[in-house]
Amino acid sequence: MGSDGGGRPRLERSRRAGRNAREEILDAAAELFTNNGYASTSTRRIADAVGIRQASLYHHFATKDDILDALLAGTIDEPLQLAAELLAESSPAPARLHTLVVGDVSHLCAGTWNLGVLYLLPELRVDRFAEFRSRREELRDRYRRLADAAIAECGGPPAAGDLPFRLVESVINIRSDDHWCPPDQAWTVAEGALRTLGYQGDFEVLRDRSAERLGLCRGRQSTR
Amino acid sequence: MGSDGGGRPRLERSRRAGRNAREEILDAAAELFTNNGYASTSTRRIADAVGIRQASLYHHFATKDDILDALLAGTIDEPLQLAAELLAESSPAPARLHTLVVGDVSHLCAGTWNLGVLYLLPELRVDRFAEFRSRREELRDRYRRLADAAIAECGGPPAAGDLPFRLVESVINIRSDDHWCPPDQAWTVAEGALRTLGYQGDFEVLRDRSAERLGLCRGRQSTR
Repeated sequence: MGSDGGGRPRLERSRRAGRNAREEILDAAAELFTNNGYASTSTRRIADAVGIRQASLYHHFATKDDILDALLAGTIDEPLQLAAELLAESSPAPARLHTLVVGDVSHLCAGTWNLGVLYLLPELRVDRFAEFRSRREELRDRYRRLADAAIAECGGPPAAGDLPFRLVESVINIRSDDHWCPPDQAWTVAEGALRTLGYQGDFEVLRDRSAERLGLCRGRQSTR
Repeated sequence: MGSDGGGRPRLERSRRAGRNAREEILDAAAELFTNNGYASTSTRRIADAVGIRQASLYHHFATKDDILDALLAGTIDEPLQLAAELLAESSPAPARLHTLVVGDVSHLCAGTWNLGVLYLLPELRVDRFAEFRSRREELRDRYRRLADAAIAECGGPPAAGDLPFRLVESVINIRSDDHWCPPDQAWTVAEGALRTLGYQGDFEVLRDRSAERLGLCRGRQSTR
């Protein structure tokens, strides 16, 4: 623990979560960005929170925007990959969308910091974040493709194709308002998302399938 | 137009939307808070954007937080009132919830600036905004009471009671991502919200009733 990997000795022992200096910087920045605001947080303050010199921080991230970009990427890389895998499969669309929603909500609820609140920052509108915006738009599009397929299979309302993605991201607001996510939130949202598309099949079967696929404990039955 | 109502002559003619100086200050602040960020916007910059002296701005709002509080109140006063009226009525809960969702989404989409993005500001966690947080929580509770009644009437999933409120606020994210709301968004969200609660009745009837109650043009039929 005497080095942060940047070639500089630590000012003090680590006090952050993370396996190495890069992860500790990301953890400290996530806490400060979500609790104090992005504009109000300096790289100096992040370095102080990790217990390293500012010069050591710059060894890992050249700018504060680079830290934000890495944090944002961490919120969508995993669901993007899951969505790509599910789109390549051939099982019924409602089942695949259910799995995507459960996986993504679980991911959004699992992080120590509620990073999704950063999606609405005006700072993200600049070119520096064009790649992140495009990847999040790609995730939204993958949701929509699965949702549109589910609507077609269920004879549901064609206009509803964007609602599952929106319901998933609403867990960011729940975490912000309540400071936690109920343990069954992923299952509640997945069932709600399918219902918006007109799905009226057996949710028990979907829950079993998603739990097995994702290696999760199955959510409680929420239907009567 | 020669006075801002604060007893000081204007530096120049108004260039903002608003019937008086107070409304012009709110409009300028809303633009700057949503486009540049709350922390990055000074009262000096707001006064400059209105074309008044900073001292005149302080005649209307003692602090920047007071401006933010007035803007936030404007996003929920109307739906809170509508929800109170609907809760006092005795028609079926799904119909009343449909009307609340259509009215609230229309209200969130109608404002010039997407003020809902400010709900996630860490600055709102301090005591100064306790009243706003409590009023927004009251709105959420009114949604939940109508939703729970609708779930009971439909035999729907008990865990879904918070989803309509969440779907409504998701139009904030749609506006942020797409820079507009589709004209049918209120009707799409209202139908989606009812479906999450297990409602499978006639959406035509609900649309007619909500359109009449709210004095709106009825949304296009989105079901097949």
